[in-house]
Amino acid sequence: MLGLMQDWPLVCSRILDHAATFHAGREVVSRTVEGPIHRTTYAEMRRRALRLAQRLEHRGIRLGDRCATLAWNTARHMEVWYGLMGIGAIYHTVNPRLFPDQIAWIINHAGDRLLFVDLTFIPIVEKIWDQLETIEQVIVLTDAAHMPQTSLPDVAPYEEWLAEADGDFAWKTFDENTAAGICYTSGTTGDPKGVVYSHRSNVLHAMAAGQPDMLNLSSRDRVMPVVPLFHANGWSLAFSAPMSGAALIMPGARMDGEAIWELLDSEKVSCTAAVPTIWLMLLQYLEQSGKKLPYLDRVVIGGSACPRAMLVKFENVYDVRVMHAWGMTEMSPLGSVCSLKPEYDALEGDARLDIQQKQGHPPFLVEMKITDDAGKELPWDGKTFGRLKVRGPAVTKSYFKGEGGEVLDDDGFFDTGDVAHIDAYGYMQITDRAKDVIKSGGEWISTIDLENLAVGHPDVAEAAVIGVAHPKWDERPLLVVVPREGSEPTREDLLAFMKGKIANWWMPDDVIFVEEIPHTATGKIQKTRLREQFADYTLPV
Amino acid sequence: MLGLMQDWPLVCSRILDHAATFHAGREVVSRTVEGPIHRTTYAEMRRRALRLAQRLEHRGIRLGDRCATLAWNTARHMEVWYGLMGIGAIYHTVNPRLFPDQIAWIINHAGDRLLFVDLTFIPIVEKIWDQLETIEQVIVLTDAAHMPQTSLPDVAPYEEWLAEADGDFAWKTFDENTAAGICYTSGTTGDPKGVVYSHRSNVLHAMAAGQPDMLNLSSRDRVMPVVPLFHANGWSLAFSAPMSGAALIMPGARMDGEAIWELLDSEKVSCTAAVPTIWLMLLQYLEQSGKKLPYLDRVVIGGSACPRAMLVKFENVYDVRVMHAWGMTEMSPLGSVCSLKPEYDALEGDARLDIQQKQGHPPFLVEMKITDDAGKELPWDGKTFGRLKVRGPAVTKSYFKGEGGEVLDDDGFFDTGDVAHIDAYGYMQITDRAKDVIKSGGEWISTIDLENLAVGHPDVAEAAVIGVAHPKWDERPLLVVVPREGSEPTREDLLAFMKGKIANWWMPDDVIFVEEIPHTATGKIQKTRLREQFADYTLPV
Repeated sequence: MLGLMQDWPLVCSRILDHAATFHAGREVVSRTVEGPIHRTTYAEMRRRALRLAQRLEHRGIRLGDRCATLAWNTARHMEVWYGLMGIGAIYHTVNPRLFPDQIAWIINHAGDRLLFVDLTFIPIVEKIWDQLETIEQVIVLTDAAHMPQTSLPDVAPYEEWLAEADGDFAWKTFDENTAAGICYTSGTTGDPKGVVYSHRSNVLHAMAAGQPDMLNLSSRDRVMPVVPLFHANGWSLAFSAPMSGAALIMPGARMDGEAIWELLDSEKVSCTAAVPTIWLMLLQYLEQSGKKLPYLDRVVIGGSACPRAMLVKFENVYDVRVMHAWGMTEMSPLGSVCSLKPEYDALEGDARLDIQQKQGHPPFLVEMKITDDAGKELPWDGKTFGRLKVRGPAVTKSYFKGEGGEVLDDDGFFDTGDVAHIDAYGYMQITDRAKDVIKSGGEWISTIDLENLAVGHPDVAEAAVIGVAHPKWDERPLLVVVPREGSEPTREDLLAFMKGKIANWWMPDDVIFVEEIPHTATGKIQKTRLREQFADYTLPV
Repeated sequence: MLGLMQDWPLVCSRILDHAATFHAGREVVSRTVEGPIHRTTYAEMRRRALRLAQRLEHRGIRLGDRCATLAWNTARHMEVWYGLMGIGAIYHTVNPRLFPDQIAWIINHAGDRLLFVDLTFIPIVEKIWDQLETIEQVIVLTDAAHMPQTSLPDVAPYEEWLAEADGDFAWKTFDENTAAGICYTSGTTGDPKGVVYSHRSNVLHAMAAGQPDMLNLSSRDRVMPVVPLFHANGWSLAFSAPMSGAALIMPGARMDGEAIWELLDSEKVSCTAAVPTIWLMLLQYLEQSGKKLPYLDRVVIGGSACPRAMLVKFENVYDVRVMHAWGMTEMSPLGSVCSLKPEYDALEGDARLDIQQKQGHPPFLVEMKITDDAGKELPWDGKTFGRLKVRGPAVTKSYFKGEGGEVLDDDGFFDTGDVAHIDAYGYMQITDRAKDVIKSGGEWISTIDLENLAVGHPDVAEAAVIGVAHPKWDERPLLVVVPREGSEPTREDLLAFMKGKIANWWMPDDVIFVEEIPHTATGKIQKTRLREQFADYTLPV
């Protein structure tokens, strides 16, 4: 027997409809790529998105077609998303920070038909144009007056191209499981793989992300997504903010500390979100300039672990609440937020910071478990760590075109590739990447824990830990250290410093000093290269 | 092209799973029907609900079977809901305040197989037992020690009946559109009609209801649903509270001001919800006793319009935020909440109260429009009022067994039977019931507005306005007044008092004084009876 409730598919156009109807005059403010600050509203964005949907249809774009964007966070970029989704076409946000060859590979793999590009990224497109197999036309996100000279054929300025439609149009209707967007994983192993969001997953995810214990988004918020739309589905803010009627502040191309602060201040931003690197730049700018953050209520920090010092600075110096979060492209992306449940709400000082350093607890819609390598579930005691696996309606079940094969376990859980422990109240903390964790005598050692401990030593600038082969224990930890300028720590210094702070069997078997540790383009330690570098290294006996 | 996100049906068991996993120790506190306060947790409730699901299956209850409850708000009642839903059976909450014949009619119409009943309501069941055609067994929500003498055959105490299952059980799986619950409308016109909620509609509705601009439910809340589970799907609190990890305080059978206050105080309730009648009793108790509400943060008031004086008292005297809300059984039930968007957030005094008297704006998932009788949409100017129609995934598309026929318009909107205006920011205010509104010369006159105005006169105890036939204008308003004891207002007094405060053509054509105005069982003015009473009345010329 079925319920007798209305058939109302969860499609993304309804999010913009709701915003344009019940928060019609709410602002979307952008720092344009051309320079000036641009102001619009949800009602106006909906009108333009409808016009774009119509223009796309005239252009022959149809249900299921992919179109790429290479663009910063602006109202135009967001309106391109909604225009595409409104006819059942699929936004494909390409990360312009990838190598040009990778960008070409991804666009070809997705089979994108149109490419919407910001002025900034035209040189990239020119460079890879001959490699692009499926792009029929490039639309530059500007107007005719700002169009540059370019070698690209058949290129159109967005505003004039859009104006060819009259806007008398209605959203197309289709099943809520229709694909809405694609985002490729960065592909640290093998080729990048496409994650395909559905309308249903985007809507459900936004509803979960806005909840009071998650990002707590209301119509009184003014939200600035510094995290780019091309990074992990833009952390869903292009969906969750309009759904909750929050104003949006789009930072455009300028991502330096001063530019970010200017918008936080002049636009009275209440909630912002980005990776730690951005906040490091902002905090440095604040320190140098003596500026404050009088309007900012909370900052969402994810993408990689939030350093304790950053937490302390935001909360104690600037009175901004830190919402440590974790997620991944494959999760749409929100996996957890570290808001404080009543069990932890009364904590102060270090005890509170200890909790805030955890990545937190998931929203309704995300299930979690931790397992050993054999798939056996491990206890939630806040110590035992294992492979973190997740399940839910906004979690990937397979990649585009079946790349990577079967990715779910027998119970339908997706392996995040992270290693974590979970405490009795359901707070999860990432302790390592699964491919980095050291397996010693059947037990696991967290390289992140060892690194965090080592960088606490005053003579250490940077530290990385990798596992190296060991005849008896399979693997043992090797600590690689970049000494702080002017200091000359010894192996014995460091080991003595670490002793007693960790289990004895976690102690590194050796310490090696280097001038530099290899990093990825996004600033993470490149452990694959480090392991290659020390492939021939033998531990002292 | 479809998205590649996981298939994760929105079924209600996942709500309790989430609460039991991530808010395992969160309390559910009940004032038991037997007397003492009982404390349990979401983890324990889930264990018992699983055991019940197993027991129901042993008893032969299957997917699609209906089972009735005649019960107060307690943990047991809620666990019966989850036990039933966990095997795809359907909770049917019966309102014990209906006439016994109506109760029998409804249970027969639903075809309920089991009846779960509180001690309080056994006399009702005994009275109607011979009329019940489908009930196979009565389970009394108590233990053997508290079982009363009863003439009912094959009756079992819940606790011992439940204990026959060992609890080694898993939720059944089924489509998210499977029916989860039934609630009959009160049936002011014709027979009661069954509204059938689905798992999907209950889950989506709870996600919408918890949002910051709606009930704003978090794990730090302690929520007391004074509104009964048998009233309009219990306002969804049995879903939205566990979904958000809020503690639940269940008031049981004692609904007087003192009992309600005791729990608000001793259990540090942060959010509570009920109809104005309940809050009138509470406010009277507070005034008499001098008690305060130091822990209560907000009170949700719905079911009928919140009087302005009640708003003022809660906010100004007791520092409790009023969340005026509107909904109906057919909407699962939430239609709107009057939280303050930035446009109104800075208002103070009367201007703020004017807004708070509106029923507010809808969550994402509810679409609204107002139309004239011909279905033409009317403007959102805060003045023009029309039939309020709604659409969404938790809104009825038809009644159980097709009773009442087709209930949606061509665009899929459900006619609420209310008349309302909506302002430019999307705030809706109910001005009348569609069947009560007076149609005079093609224009509509709100009887509620006239009544509110008339009761402002110091000599008026109660007032009702009905339309009476008029040869030229079709209908004209007749004001029926119960004078305050000891006063003798005249027709001219009242009309002079009203003049200038409303449009001239809204002025009642006549005033009639009576000793009593007829009321329904729930205390609302019974306009149908009033219209019968004045069927032969002729307006003065």
